[in-house]
Amino acid sequence: MPRYKLTIEYDGAGFVGWQRQANGLSVQQALEEAVAAFCGERVTVHGAGRTDTGVHAEGQVAHLDLERDALPDKLRDAVNFHLKPRPAAVLTAEPADAGFHARFSAVERRYRYRIVNRRAPLVLDRGRAWWVPQPLDAAAMQQAADRLLGHHDFESFRSSECQARDALRTLDLLRVTRRGDVVELEVAARSFLHNQVRILAGTLRMVGDGRWTADDVSRALAARDRRAAGQTAPPDGLTLVSVRY
Amino acid sequence: MPRYKLTIEYDGAGFVGWQRQANGLSVQQALEEAVAAFCGERVTVHGAGRTDTGVHAEGQVAHLDLERDALPDKLRDAVNFHLKPRPAAVLTAEPADAGFHARFSAVERRYRYRIVNRRAPLVLDRGRAWWVPQPLDAAAMQQAADRLLGHHDFESFRSSECQARDALRTLDLLRVTRRGDVVELEVAARSFLHNQVRILAGTLRMVGDGRWTADDVSRALAARDRRAAGQTAPPDGLTLVSVRY
Repeated sequence: MPRYKLTIEYDGAGFVGWQRQANGLSVQQALEEAVAAFCGERVTVHGAGRTDTGVHAEGQVAHLDLERDALPDKLRDAVNFHLKPRPAAVLTAEPADAGFHARFSAVERRYRYRIVNRRAPLVLDRGRAWWVPQPLDAAAMQQAADRLLGHHDFESFRSSECQARDALRTLDLLRVTRRGDVVELEVAARSFLHNQVRILAGTLRMVGDGRWTADDVSRALAARDRRAAGQTAPPDGLTLVSVRY
Repeated sequence: MPRYKLTIEYDGAGFVGWQRQANGLSVQQALEEAVAAFCGERVTVHGAGRTDTGVHAEGQVAHLDLERDALPDKLRDAVNFHLKPRPAAVLTAEPADAGFHARFSAVERRYRYRIVNRRAPLVLDRGRAWWVPQPLDAAAMQQAADRLLGHHDFESFRSSECQARDALRTLDLLRVTRRGDVVELEVAARSFLHNQVRILAGTLRMVGDGRWTADDVSRALAARDRRAAGQTAPPDGLTLVSVRY
């Protein structure tokens, strides 16, 4: 059976998240239905990252198996045709080896968390960023972020619904940059816990607005208790940027 | 009477354009109503650029006179409060001299026109860019753009509804850049004709996809006839970036 690797963009506001749910349309279901509409095959589309409701992707990766061969560009165009008018699109479709698995073969996932830091409410960034009107000190946020880099037990930084066996993860990148009113977190790791990036963002915001110091963040990490870290930042600001294999 | 200078962001899809219209809500009317809701004064808000329906702004400038003094930050926050939930916001409010006029004092207006150039339809850029699936050659577009720089009679590049007395304008900047799938035009001039940037975009696209050469663009300019230039590109891709005084 030929396997295909898809790179996918979507607007998280249009779906109940990546994964199939009883309570609404997921990106996974929308893709599976578009494939069925194209070639009549009932497939499972396996994604690299199970993004939550409201979380966007500009480079989600998924794979699927077809019974009959299809030209990759034809597959991409046909799935896009049948996805309309839903806010999702296949950017590229490529043949993949039988051993390729979108989720298990991934060696790095990269996310961006955008904060718009200004007094005026969001307009062009509505639904695409977290609005924080209090002035944020990005340099202080970077200093605190450095405490979280590397291999740690991130028990304080995962949702109570997280199903991972343990919370040991390695953060390879956690960069805070400011360009004008926009404060951006760039985060990369082999894998993430449920809500991890959003809790990182909510915690670093506490440092940015002066309520917490870098030491408070170290203490939150050491506590291994969700209640010790900051709030879960809204999904609007989060985008799955890319997956590396 | 104290005069105030406002810098304004809006999503063009939410309005019938900048200027008051009988057929729907304009940005100007929304602002005037928000000022009235704040302080009870019926004012006229004068804008620097009369953007069309669907055209966005991240740096529109306007001025207004109040009878009673208001703290600029208070004015900004109050107008933003009363603008909700409309997709417009005042980014800054500052006191201005009595001689300042948002429209007539402006020495440069700067626009960005965004094209997303890929096979997949727009998702995250829906309503914010022009989708062009045919491959575009940005270098060829820049060569043709150079023919339009400087002082010319832009008769071919204005809408038949344009009310300006003549079409003599000076383009100070017309830069074409590509970053990944995005081709961006950056355009600056003291003033523009009606639809000028959108017709420039529609014409350069003809060069980008190989149907026209730079010489064809020179001929279109020399013709002084709207029918000689390219199509009027959709408003979605156009944003008023800034106004300089």
